[in-house]
Amino acid sequence: MEKANLTHKFSLFQDYWSPKIAGELNDSYVKLAKLKGEFVWHHHEVEDELFLVVKGRLLVKLRDQDIWLEEGEFVIIPRGVEHLPIAEEEAHVLLLEPKSTLNTGDVQNERTVADLERI
Amino acid sequence: MEKANLTHKFSLFQDYWSPKIAGELNDSYVKLAKLKGEFVWHHHEVEDELFLVVKGRLLVKLRDQDIWLEEGEFVIIPRGVEHLPIAEEEAHVLLLEPKSTLNTGDVQNERTVADLERI
Repeated sequence: MEKANLTHKFSLFQDYWSPKIAGELNDSYVKLAKLKGEFVWHHHEVEDELFLVVKGRLLVKLRDQDIWLEEGEFVIIPRGVEHLPIAEEEAHVLLLEPKSTLNTGDVQNERTVADLERI
Repeated sequence: MEKANLTHKFSLFQDYWSPKIAGELNDSYVKLAKLKGEFVWHHHEVEDELFLVVKGRLLVKLRDQDIWLEEGEFVIIPRGVEHLPIAEEEAHVLLLEPKSTLNTGDVQNERTVADLERI
């Protein structure tokens, strides 16, 4: 069995908005993503999603609220809630979500990544 | 919707080996636990369990392997695998596991905590 070191795992890729699978448990994946800039408004129909900031800071915009996440902070976005992640500077984020979750949720466009790499 | 700050959440309790619920998503809880000393050998019949060390270090003993987790490192213990967590000094650990998971798994003794506090 192997442990995962977050700093090491984040050193293995450079692309933004392309979550990598760093672990799986039960029906979920632990994903790591580097974020920079603005994503797209989307929601996940039947999946709650956890964002934990490992490095940097992340703004998660909701339709009625802005949530600023600093290092060591997490938020759980319940299913159905529209959200827009924005990272002014590069942010390293751990995501936890069901294996069925698509990064762009209900939206399918050029930002959609369907086949995730494992690291 | 509220974010959670790990440092703040860990400041809210002092007892060891008594996981607190800090979030829930899908069928799982995010739990936070302060660990010190040796726990008990146990396994979880049908649940995989993630340990992420937020502060300090944790030894997860398996029957055939020792896994030392430092800050920023995680391991996923698959269902059925016997494990024994040991923290020589106080360690702060984030756990992710199905809501059905009991801390002592297949063992029920004085270390078992069935009703978890929410923080």
